[in-house]
Amino acid sequence: MPAAPPESAHGGDTSGYDRAAVRAVLDRARAEGRTSLTAPEAKAVADAYGIPAPREALATSAEEAVEHAVELGLPVVAKIVSPDILHKTEAGGVAVGLETPQDVATAYHRILANAQAHSPGARVEGVQVQQQLGGGQEVIIGATTDPTFGKIVVFGLGGVLVEVLKDVAFRLAPVTPAEALEQVGDIKAAEVLRGVRGGEGVDTHRLADLLVRLSHLVTDFPEIAEADLNPVFATASAAVAADLRFVLDFDPPRPPKRFSREEILAATNRIFRPRSIAVIGASNETGKIGNSVIKNIVDGGFEGEIHPINPRSGEVYGLKAYKSITDVPGEVDVAVFAIPAKFVAGALEEVGRKGVAGAILIPSGFAETGEQELQDEVLAVARRHGVRLLGPNIYGYYYTPQKLSATFCTPYDVVGGTALTSQSGGIGMAILGYSRSTRTGVSAIVGVGNKADIDEDDLLTFFGQDDNTNAIAMHLEDLKDGRAFVEAAREVVPRKPVVVLKAGRTSAGARAAGSHTGALAGDDKVYDDILRQAGVVRAPGLNELLEYGRALPVLPTPRGENVVVITGAGGSGVLLSDAVVDNGMSLYEIPPDLDAAFRAFIPPFGAAGNPVDITGGEPPSTYEKTIRLGLEDERVHALILGYWHTIVTPPMVFADVVVKVVSEARAKGVDKPIVASLSGDTEVEAASARLFENGIVAYPYTTEKPVQVLGAKYRWARAAGLL
Amino acid sequence: MPAAPPESAHGGDTSGYDRAAVRAVLDRARAEGRTSLTAPEAKAVADAYGIPAPREALATSAEEAVEHAVELGLPVVAKIVSPDILHKTEAGGVAVGLETPQDVATAYHRILANAQAHSPGARVEGVQVQQQLGGGQEVIIGATTDPTFGKIVVFGLGGVLVEVLKDVAFRLAPVTPAEALEQVGDIKAAEVLRGVRGGEGVDTHRLADLLVRLSHLVTDFPEIAEADLNPVFATASAAVAADLRFVLDFDPPRPPKRFSREEILAATNRIFRPRSIAVIGASNETGKIGNSVIKNIVDGGFEGEIHPINPRSGEVYGLKAYKSITDVPGEVDVAVFAIPAKFVAGALEEVGRKGVAGAILIPSGFAETGEQELQDEVLAVARRHGVRLLGPNIYGYYYTPQKLSATFCTPYDVVGGTALTSQSGGIGMAILGYSRSTRTGVSAIVGVGNKADIDEDDLLTFFGQDDNTNAIAMHLEDLKDGRAFVEAAREVVPRKPVVVLKAGRTSAGARAAGSHTGALAGDDKVYDDILRQAGVVRAPGLNELLEYGRALPVLPTPRGENVVVITGAGGSGVLLSDAVVDNGMSLYEIPPDLDAAFRAFIPPFGAAGNPVDITGGEPPSTYEKTIRLGLEDERVHALILGYWHTIVTPPMVFADVVVKVVSEARAKGVDKPIVASLSGDTEVEAASARLFENGIVAYPYTTEKPVQVLGAKYRWARAAGLL
Repeated sequence: MPAAPPESAHGGDTSGYDRAAVRAVLDRARAEGRTSLTAPEAKAVADAYGIPAPREALATSAEEAVEHAVELGLPVVAKIVSPDILHKTEAGGVAVGLETPQDVATAYHRILANAQAHSPGARVEGVQVQQQLGGGQEVIIGATTDPTFGKIVVFGLGGVLVEVLKDVAFRLAPVTPAEALEQVGDIKAAEVLRGVRGGEGVDTHRLADLLVRLSHLVTDFPEIAEADLNPVFATASAAVAADLRFVLDFDPPRPPKRFSREEILAATNRIFRPRSIAVIGASNETGKIGNSVIKNIVDGGFEGEIHPINPRSGEVYGLKAYKSITDVPGEVDVAVFAIPAKFVAGALEEVGRKGVAGAILIPSGFAETGEQELQDEVLAVARRHGVRLLGPNIYGYYYTPQKLSATFCTPYDVVGGTALTSQSGGIGMAILGYSRSTRTGVSAIVGVGNKADIDEDDLLTFFGQDDNTNAIAMHLEDLKDGRAFVEAAREVVPRKPVVVLKAGRTSAGARAAGSHTGALAGDDKVYDDILRQAGVVRAPGLNELLEYGRALPVLPTPRGENVVVITGAGGSGVLLSDAVVDNGMSLYEIPPDLDAAFRAFIPPFGAAGNPVDITGGEPPSTYEKTIRLGLEDERVHALILGYWHTIVTPPMVFADVVVKVVSEARAKGVDKPIVASLSGDTEVEAASARLFENGIVAYPYTTEKPVQVLGAKYRWARAAGLL
Repeated sequence: MPAAPPESAHGGDTSGYDRAAVRAVLDRARAEGRTSLTAPEAKAVADAYGIPAPREALATSAEEAVEHAVELGLPVVAKIVSPDILHKTEAGGVAVGLETPQDVATAYHRILANAQAHSPGARVEGVQVQQQLGGGQEVIIGATTDPTFGKIVVFGLGGVLVEVLKDVAFRLAPVTPAEALEQVGDIKAAEVLRGVRGGEGVDTHRLADLLVRLSHLVTDFPEIAEADLNPVFATASAAVAADLRFVLDFDPPRPPKRFSREEILAATNRIFRPRSIAVIGASNETGKIGNSVIKNIVDGGFEGEIHPINPRSGEVYGLKAYKSITDVPGEVDVAVFAIPAKFVAGALEEVGRKGVAGAILIPSGFAETGEQELQDEVLAVARRHGVRLLGPNIYGYYYTPQKLSATFCTPYDVVGGTALTSQSGGIGMAILGYSRSTRTGVSAIVGVGNKADIDEDDLLTFFGQDDNTNAIAMHLEDLKDGRAFVEAAREVVPRKPVVVLKAGRTSAGARAAGSHTGALAGDDKVYDDILRQAGVVRAPGLNELLEYGRALPVLPTPRGENVVVITGAGGSGVLLSDAVVDNGMSLYEIPPDLDAAFRAFIPPFGAAGNPVDITGGEPPSTYEKTIRLGLEDERVHALILGYWHTIVTPPMVFADVVVKVVSEARAKGVDKPIVASLSGDTEVEAASARLFENGIVAYPYTTEKPVQVLGAKYRWARAAGLL
């Protein structure tokens, strides 16, 4: 077989693959109505993609088995070959450690007898005699078809322990060699691969190469639903798949409809920057959603045209109302629906005829209440007319640069860089309340609800190119099309942080699967690995989603990994140091000259090193000098401040000093991320707010949160390739 | 050897141990100036405590080695026996897998030659010939001497993976059989012991028995500093220590001074409930610590006697001042020091002569600035007079039931059930500010600072029996005497939750150790396991310490594990469910009759099951009916509420409804823990406060925190044996 040597695939060159050979094997299986491959077929598929497997041969008699064994070299493994027997071990169809010709002959007969007993009438093609591998490190490499993400590959160590500890790493297929290498190093026990207790390390490049090849195979042949290379024996000079299993599905689910980037932007630019909005069901009656919506759009200060649509009223909230949107003069970009679910499809026909770009479907009573058909009907109308739908079952959406509050909630007007989206209305309300309470600068708040049409990847595409948006924070419970989301995220992440709160982490449970890999692919670990692969910062909870959303656009991007803690309280310094490690950063080992420079500013019993402990009783000037030094020294890339409330340096004095020093540095072009933890009496709350307003991310009564936020910024900066 | 059969130790019966045999071995090692044992010595020690080890015999010639091997049964292992060679493998002094008599003879000569080459002049006693074990599961059992906790035992699986993943569990020695069994089950990979992939499980009782015996051995003989049973081969019917290593230390550090419970309570009861307080260095000069302290005691409303001590003033803050405390008429319970460090020892002499119970040493300038000698001198004065010291280097202490604010910070007067302590002044200030901001009901806030004398176990002992305290929350960076702390905690936990924030989690680093066990004993994992063993609830960060401290006394204790989520927002329900699992609880599987009862109150498209999703547009009565049902049904033990802000049920209406339903239930004697997550506009902040005041632990904008707090309550209730 003309299998490509490992090198060829390292650059992603797939020209060495023998696709025709795979095609032939799969076609035969399909023709025979099989969903699995025999061992020789699997070997042929592996050979075609340069996946090293043990040398082997098919025997149809005990004599032939012995001949093959001697030729391959003892010891050997013998396995039943039958298209009707998938689980060979359970059928007694496998014998290992055959050391002598006599062993081989005996095993041949026993395997046939077992297979016959286990599956009477099974078609038996013979017994596969195979080199017995061993030694080195056992690993598992596999691929499966995830309902959200499609083809994914998995890597893990073999053996019982890892099976119990579920120490595996997933990546979206196909993987590049660099991604595969990173995947191999991503398991918790990766140290084992480097060799421990004097053991020799394995060639991780060869393992990565196997992942690349397998990922290409399942991408090229979507009907390969699951694949296990298990175990793969890895040594310092080889990686050979000792056993191969393929599960086929010739009728895979169709991927969801995709729009091109241009189509998405054409629609969303009109939706978020409309010149003209119609409110279907606008009403003068207080308490009605149609009343709240029209009020909010008007009171929120929207400066484009606003057209109430109401069959009964001549005027709504002081604006001329139309019986039908088709009566509205000129073009309409957005139609906000505030009418009961059952009337939506009818009204949407008119909206579609009017050439509206986006229908904002506030009404509930669709899929979330079991009315999937009604929702499908509405979507069909939208597709027919080329209208994009937001919702249904949403609170609406805000876009502050346009002073647009198209929602039945209250207007929001603190303009800033964060775009927030939520799948749930409850979470949307929490976003609004939290933003208002903390005066978070927001570009948009969007409810996606049932996601009949517009979903997170559409919004990512819009916000990614929206100059008013610097960070995107999304609450989601599922992804309609995980692959489209990943593609959109990869495009955006190099420019802006994308934060995701994925709810439903623990609901995965067991999934029926025909392979080991499939069984390992619990929902949340797949989400976790693949979102990380896409460069997304995952928020562990709602509060973090909100805090990251608030803080990330405020914090400058660090230029390097050297984090320094400057603290007035040794106790805070210890907790801040804990948090630094917890959040994937490390304390900069301060060089002697810089250490001496810090020491010059602090009492002799203070501790330089990192944290720089300036001690508790110091005046504002000590904070000022040490923070200035940290800002001005180019080797320091981020500062974490620990403040301790004292009479000598009260909270607001500390805040003012920090703001002053930071402003001076910014005037000189130095802008480093700074976060602060304020310990003290209640005045630290106002001081924290003052700092936050000035771009220093500060919190009272917590040492964890400021560091967690800085860690999120670092995670993004690394994913964006900025570090 | 008369080793006790496994059964005898299960009940903690140690009468079968042959202490004299161990004594003899250790005495011989000590006499020879050795810190390690030879293999036969180690075997003798194991035999004396009934620790199963392979059968073995000492050979002093190749012929004798072969004889032993044949008698023990081939294959065998051969090991050098030399008091001068500790690391036998490195010396080439071990041969395994000796299958034939010829192998044994060859190995004998090779081992002697290797040993001679490796350590010329080493005393060689011969070669130990030992049964070769194998099969079953390899585990490691060990003991070491922790600088904080003293003797501890460790359990883990053997092999490279666990070494890499550090999957081990520690317990304070001695362990009971029940504790040891729980320890064996505490490793992440415990499932392996139960048998996976068709493998046979091991007898965990035998492993627990080994832990018990080893824990008794190191407790009985403190000079055994470290012990490794590594590997232990465990099967369904046996657990045999294939290799034994003991490291001796005949000059162990002395344990710190201990006071009896009576002594501690005699002193602390006077300190926290003084009738008379002197302030050493009380001053009229604003800005001086001695001025702040006297003001705070007076203004805080302390109703006992207050005596300023100041050599120059006749009157301080309107009170008669004395030149010396010895001039004060009558008994004085507490002396608060507000004078420079260098004068403390002198003043303490007078305080001691006056028979004061506690000296509160606010001044800094002791060990924390390198002045360890000065601190030692002060402690010596205190010990001579029987005065207990709090501090030095602290902000002072508060005890609200006595209206006592003996501190240079500001008074605090919200009386409640939480006692908080901090090792760091900065953290103390955060405690004060947070408490004031949230109106947390507090019994005491205490700074322990340098802990020259009074430390956390003294305070635990006091608060444990203090009727004004319902929960104890402690920030600590180290424990002077971990064993005393554990003993105090074990005494308190059955009655009150003890929450600990242990700072410095990640600072452990590598520690020089002579054994595998010693090397595994990183600081934080030891703290984590042993604090849990003591029933302490560990707070992951400062904010959690404060939240747990605030909420635990407010929440009733659950009577069982059945947690039900009732939510108006499906989105919150999903996040709350995630949080339930994250925090070690599980959603109650609601029985059909109760499910039907819930369904009767909610819309047909709402989801019963758990979470009970009442859907978003519901009126207050739906919340009311479902919450009442959850409170009244005896099978439900705790409620988690998810509120979604709507016009139909505004935040304060929701709060009032919940308070009403809960009050009615309490009036009927039903008091279950209820926590709530409020999603909505800013009004949810006031609604959350209203709920909290009424004993419903509620937070806005977070689904995680309420569940985390409930989880902390559950962790405590389980540790206290209440579930």
